[in-house]
Amino acid sequence: MADSTAIEATIERYWATFSTGDREGWLALFADDATVEDPVGSPLREGKAAIAEFFDQSQMLADRIVLDGRTAQVCGHEAAFHMQIRVITDQTTLVMDAIDVMTFDDDARITSMRAFFDPSKARIADG
Amino acid sequence: MADSTAIEATIERYWATFSTGDREGWLALFADDATVEDPVGSPLREGKAAIAEFFDQSQMLADRIVLDGRTAQVCGHEAAFHMQIRVITDQTTLVMDAIDVMTFDDDARITSMRAFFDPSKARIADG
Repeated sequence: MADSTAIEATIERYWATFSTGDREGWLALFADDATVEDPVGSPLREGKAAIAEFFDQSQMLADRIVLDGRTAQVCGHEAAFHMQIRVITDQTTLVMDAIDVMTFDDDARITSMRAFFDPSKARIADG
Repeated sequence: MADSTAIEATIERYWATFSTGDREGWLALFADDATVEDPVGSPLREGKAAIAEFFDQSQMLADRIVLDGRTAQVCGHEAAFHMQIRVITDQTTLVMDAIDVMTFDDDARITSMRAFFDPSKARIADG
């Protein structure tokens, strides 16, 4: 089993690579047969091609999407964390809270990601 | 399916009843056959008697345990939230971050709860 330090490193790279639009760096964090359910309740995306498509669709929504991740909690091969998502365009910045739940393989690659958030609760950032 | 307002109300009562030691109020939030995995990776507690025992064991750890819940995210019949747990004795207050993931039945009662936290990261509260 991957140790918690390796899992925490994957999570920090997940935030950093997504926030800088580093597609290959972000995709490398997933196992080949990983699944993504974002948001929870939406159809499952299975495998790297589907997950790459998800990345591209997400990044197209804004000039930049910054994941301000916090309070990652690792339990065995699973983890959960809170993040603020900042969706930045030249007009405005929207802020949403989200909680991601992930599982990991022995190499601390993500085998599943489920994202809890409610887009209807997005709010305009102060200042 | 329970609507998100009803699920949010259950979550707020979960924080409030646990924080005031309201055993019956807290237990009433669970379905009869609910399960609790706290922390994630520990043996599953199944049914109200096992969940009541978990409540009693938790409450014995301190004079008071306050759940400062935040950022509940409801997706269909599931939800996740971040909270700070304050474990208060007459000597000191320990603070831990945790993330809970729950499922709910049609009456917005909790059918499963999984708690992500790492007791080794507890810290002494400031002031």
